[in-house]
Amino acid sequence: MSSAPNGSLDYRSAGVDIDAAEDAKARIGRLVESTRTAGCLGAFGAFGGLFRAPQGTSPILVASADGVGTKIKVAIEAGRHDTIGHCLVNHCVNDILAQGATPLFFLDYVAFGVLEPAVVEGVVAGVAAGCRENGCALIGGETAEMPGLYTPPDYDLAGFIVGVVEEGQALGAERVRAGDVLIGLESSGLHTNGYSLARRIVFERMGLGVRDEFPGEDGATVAEVLLRVHRSYLAALRPVLARIHALAHITGGGLPGNLNRALPSSLDAVVDTSRWSVPNVFRVLGDAGRVDRAERFRAFNMGVGAVVVAAPADVTDVMAAAGQVGVRAWALGEVVPGAGNVRFTGEKT
Amino acid sequence: MSSAPNGSLDYRSAGVDIDAAEDAKARIGRLVESTRTAGCLGAFGAFGGLFRAPQGTSPILVASADGVGTKIKVAIEAGRHDTIGHCLVNHCVNDILAQGATPLFFLDYVAFGVLEPAVVEGVVAGVAAGCRENGCALIGGETAEMPGLYTPPDYDLAGFIVGVVEEGQALGAERVRAGDVLIGLESSGLHTNGYSLARRIVFERMGLGVRDEFPGEDGATVAEVLLRVHRSYLAALRPVLARIHALAHITGGGLPGNLNRALPSSLDAVVDTSRWSVPNVFRVLGDAGRVDRAERFRAFNMGVGAVVVAAPADVTDVMAAAGQVGVRAWALGEVVPGAGNVRFTGEKT
Repeated sequence: MSSAPNGSLDYRSAGVDIDAAEDAKARIGRLVESTRTAGCLGAFGAFGGLFRAPQGTSPILVASADGVGTKIKVAIEAGRHDTIGHCLVNHCVNDILAQGATPLFFLDYVAFGVLEPAVVEGVVAGVAAGCRENGCALIGGETAEMPGLYTPPDYDLAGFIVGVVEEGQALGAERVRAGDVLIGLESSGLHTNGYSLARRIVFERMGLGVRDEFPGEDGATVAEVLLRVHRSYLAALRPVLARIHALAHITGGGLPGNLNRALPSSLDAVVDTSRWSVPNVFRVLGDAGRVDRAERFRAFNMGVGAVVVAAPADVTDVMAAAGQVGVRAWALGEVVPGAGNVRFTGEKT
Repeated sequence: MSSAPNGSLDYRSAGVDIDAAEDAKARIGRLVESTRTAGCLGAFGAFGGLFRAPQGTSPILVASADGVGTKIKVAIEAGRHDTIGHCLVNHCVNDILAQGATPLFFLDYVAFGVLEPAVVEGVVAGVAAGCRENGCALIGGETAEMPGLYTPPDYDLAGFIVGVVEEGQALGAERVRAGDVLIGLESSGLHTNGYSLARRIVFERMGLGVRDEFPGEDGATVAEVLLRVHRSYLAALRPVLARIHALAHITGGGLPGNLNRALPSSLDAVVDTSRWSVPNVFRVLGDAGRVDRAERFRAFNMGVGAVVVAAPADVTDVMAAAGQVGVRAWALGEVVPGAGNVRFTGEKT
């Protein structure tokens, strides 16, 4: 930090560059435009984003806020900024899909120590790609320069989604019945969870850098494996949403910490871990970190990014809908009388 | 960071404490409940927050995302965590009020290096206080622990608001006419802008600490002066919203960088700076930092937190509505033919 020769201070000398903020804003206008949907009103750059309230007999808005955890540190270390925003949007889409809601609009928050317009552009490009994938309009956001809080080149990213579900069509534990089937949907990798543990294992225990090859991944680098985009399950489940009972998005806490949120207090979920093969990345991380079995399932999704709870008669159609968009699905187990707990059987992992 | 004697790693050893997250969640449940409004549906802790879509002939949702800038560094240094969330909500409320919208619901994002449940509780207490003040429901949020990104005790806070305005009642530049009057509404202090500059001046140039007395503020400390809660203008303007033309929320960029957003390209705003007294805090900061006059007006609100644009016939009622809730208001100038610019006249500052 510096000041003018006469000792006069201005905003720039205090580490805040309003011109850089204007540059960043100019770069993202086109990206924002690319996400416009029928509900959008108003122009880019207003104090608040405008979106026509959804029509319907009794529409319910469903909102969620999230970040990408320390996956962002991998993106920063790799200098690869254009996928993390896509992860964020897909994460948020899945969170409201767990209530049966489909997306309307999205806003982001990106905070830097030193604002780099090209990085902002990359981050927002990822956010816009996620919005386009999910038919969600990017109607606003905030780019903040916070010297002293973030150490360059670090930055953080948070997102906020609003979707809609018709009252009476919301998914949830109250729809779940004994005998329902648990259908696991394949994750694309770590999604956005377990990165603090994964980074410690990969960078400290295994001594790898972001550009090194990740073991057993056909030559893919550590950055490529760890930055795989969090999968959205909207396309897979939209055709069957009205027929499923509940959906658990497997995020922080893993299967035991999320599937329980889709259960009423009178039922258990029994997951047979022999029904799917845990992907290589989780086996490598777990073994190199000597992470015990229960902790692996708590820290990582272990290959299952979401669990659908559906009646036995609907299982074939749910699995077919997932298959239509290239998402593998497995019948993982079933719902039985119990006390709201997730239990594991099977051994193969 | 440590690991078990056998070298086994778990999530906690990687710096992420799921139990602390659960503790934080338990602490904030009551605070969230305190903000419930008629539109709320569903229970605390679901994957997404539920809110009944607004009724009306043609309701428009208005959304905004924001942070509190480096005001958060002052809160952290002062160990005073329970006001910054209130600032954030009021900031967001004003941003959508600038479109004529009144708040429906809010979500927050708080990210830590090491999650401190008591700090989370303080932050959310402030958010909840802001939500209650503005009749806004806190329906969700995310608390993240991100070791390696934030250096303890640092944390960041972002917020997202959704409000509603009936189509045709939105405020904006297109309503503004030549001859309209600019009515300034008193700020409570710096609000949430100019903190990187203010901190440099106070802590480096003036050599003060957060517990020292701030000059000319009747014994108030630096922390007290710098943490004054960002004022919400909802209560002042709700009774007259249907009659005003536009509203500029004076945030980053100051009067010149925000009042222009309330102008069509054919009109200028002429602000007479002799119409109000710039408060002591801005004079002290500007003088100690030898900040030039134009830069003061760009970095700080200079005592004016919002500017209402209204027809001359409505000025008395707008000023009376502000006065009803103890907010001072001044006729600052007027709208004249021009090119979308903000111009200053007068000398007294």
